[in-house]
Amino acid sequence: MALKKHLLVSPGPTPVPPQVSLSGAAPIIHHRTPQFQAIMKEVAENLKYLFCTKNDVLIIPCSGTGVMEAAVSNLMSPGETMVTVEGGKFGERWSSIGKAFGCETVPVTVEYGKTVSPKQIEAVLKQHPKTKALFIQFSETSTGCVYDIEAIAKITKNTNTLLVVDGISAVGAIPCYPDAWGIDVILTGSQKGLMLPPGLGFISLNDHAWAAVETSKCPRFYFDLNGHRKSLQAADNLFTPAISLIVQLREALKIIREETIEGVWKRHAWLADATRAAATALKLELFAERPGNTVTAMKVPAGLDGGKLVKTMRDELGVTPAGGQGTMKGKILRIAHLGYMDRFDILTAVAALEIALKRQNYSFKAGIGLSAAQEILCNDPN
Amino acid sequence: MALKKHLLVSPGPTPVPPQVSLSGAAPIIHHRTPQFQAIMKEVAENLKYLFCTKNDVLIIPCSGTGVMEAAVSNLMSPGETMVTVEGGKFGERWSSIGKAFGCETVPVTVEYGKTVSPKQIEAVLKQHPKTKALFIQFSETSTGCVYDIEAIAKITKNTNTLLVVDGISAVGAIPCYPDAWGIDVILTGSQKGLMLPPGLGFISLNDHAWAAVETSKCPRFYFDLNGHRKSLQAADNLFTPAISLIVQLREALKIIREETIEGVWKRHAWLADATRAAATALKLELFAERPGNTVTAMKVPAGLDGGKLVKTMRDELGVTPAGGQGTMKGKILRIAHLGYMDRFDILTAVAALEIALKRQNYSFKAGIGLSAAQEILCNDPN
Repeated sequence: MALKKHLLVSPGPTPVPPQVSLSGAAPIIHHRTPQFQAIMKEVAENLKYLFCTKNDVLIIPCSGTGVMEAAVSNLMSPGETMVTVEGGKFGERWSSIGKAFGCETVPVTVEYGKTVSPKQIEAVLKQHPKTKALFIQFSETSTGCVYDIEAIAKITKNTNTLLVVDGISAVGAIPCYPDAWGIDVILTGSQKGLMLPPGLGFISLNDHAWAAVETSKCPRFYFDLNGHRKSLQAADNLFTPAISLIVQLREALKIIREETIEGVWKRHAWLADATRAAATALKLELFAERPGNTVTAMKVPAGLDGGKLVKTMRDELGVTPAGGQGTMKGKILRIAHLGYMDRFDILTAVAALEIALKRQNYSFKAGIGLSAAQEILCNDPN
Repeated sequence: MALKKHLLVSPGPTPVPPQVSLSGAAPIIHHRTPQFQAIMKEVAENLKYLFCTKNDVLIIPCSGTGVMEAAVSNLMSPGETMVTVEGGKFGERWSSIGKAFGCETVPVTVEYGKTVSPKQIEAVLKQHPKTKALFIQFSETSTGCVYDIEAIAKITKNTNTLLVVDGISAVGAIPCYPDAWGIDVILTGSQKGLMLPPGLGFISLNDHAWAAVETSKCPRFYFDLNGHRKSLQAADNLFTPAISLIVQLREALKIIREETIEGVWKRHAWLADATRAAATALKLELFAERPGNTVTAMKVPAGLDGGKLVKTMRDELGVTPAGGQGTMKGKILRIAHLGYMDRFDILTAVAALEIALKRQNYSFKAGIGLSAAQEILCNDPN
């Protein structure tokens, strides 16, 4: 069999730059030392830059779901109302967490792949004026759809409802200005735009959200955000931090600062554009009504085996995309352009997709998807 | 300044073997693939070997405190009684977690450095016969004291009280047979005997404990152990796992299997013996009434500056021990012999301690601690 390299084009985990990977292999240093405190101070500053916020960005050793739980358990009290937008697997997770903590969850159900209109949000908040917080994804990774958070923030700003945004596949990929827009809580995980291995959760609250923490009555200890904030402000950690991942975080943030956050966003828009152009040229319908710049979800054409497309790309060609989750299984294919990706990675992904489609006798001229992408990739992002 | 190497002799984080560190720098693979499932199956088996149990050992991306919370929130219901042994910082943490979840906590207060007698445990359980669970450390890392868990298990076995053991600095260091002794829940973290960076928590429950999970009413989502168990049994993960740390876990477990768990325990006993012999030769009183084989806590002699001892060792000599925490700050010095440590590491630690003591004009013949350790280290562990 011919030599093959491996490329991750799944929407998390995403590829890690080699220099970031290697930095985590350095000997472990103790976390309660001036040496580690210097690292904490540097990453605390650079995380504010990444998030485009003046507020603290807390770091907790956990998956993204951990900081989603932290948002619920630190803002809500049992019995209080929270609105969730259920337009995919991760929106549904907000509701599951709320129920686990005894909150009244009011879901806005959105067909998979569709977006939610700001008017729908406005209506549900009018119907439930005591809603403590709206929990929503920026980018619903399971469908590839992004919601119009800027417009939604304009609505919540005029209410007593807090806006909590899961930015797990958005931060470091899609333009987002939490302070200017009025996002009260924004969170992310390490294995997406941040180009790190999974294992770190990040969450940032504004003053409105911190005020809600004061009165919230859900039990919490590991995810006690007040404790994490006090520690961070002392360049310390509440519990033993994931030291090697934080050392890697430092390196990843340096790379982002060098490209600039605006440059990172432009690159994502450009790579997403090229991927969508390839899909269209290949007559693969986009699944998302409002497709985002982190992952492109395409409908699997009738008669083709979606699961086999993933397997061919991954096991035979060394290029790992993602299939659909839950009821979308077998029906969509997702190719991410998220994190540490350049133009040639997109061409590799499209080429692998073409080969997998050919092996199921899908009819098209070889290279037609590549050419469509290349039209865009010949130019630099603008 | 002369070249200096760096050696961690703190009781967590502990040094990571270079081959383990490097394995985590390999390109990230996706966690929902047959490739990663094979890794999950291998580590699941080897974790049972490490824990000496036939029960599943769950892996959660978090610090050790995360799995401590998981034990409380999955076994207890609000208002139920839990007994804790407060003999140091980590025993006190059990009580804090219990209070956060609305449990009635009954602390057995033990002077720092002292042990708890099985009779004390027996008495408190007689006084509080409805106690749902006893939460205790195996090795109280903050004082260096180990409790007689085997004897305590003989007591709890005849009651309806579950025995929950924080084995964070014990698993992979001190002989422990959860199934044979009757420990109902045992947990640990990655950055101790497992020789890994921090970021993974591990917890194992027997059938009695799983039965309690069924009726427990504390809210939980991220730490929902039933969900984690179902995923593990499918060689899957409930949420995105800390992929690079799990790849490192596979390598660390291979090293432990090669030495054998009994060999690992013997090595720890031998290195601890040598460290205690050095302390005694240097006329440094041991702090713990029942010193364990993971860390040796020594009282700082009157007139000496304990904080400065740590700083000299760490900043001038490159050898990082731990000081005391809370009210023990400045009063004790802790040198760990935990995880990836061989005989020469102990000699390095003792030599650095001697130099730091000399710099504060503590009176002794240079090399006297080293010689005492060497008496023991000349022989192999038995």
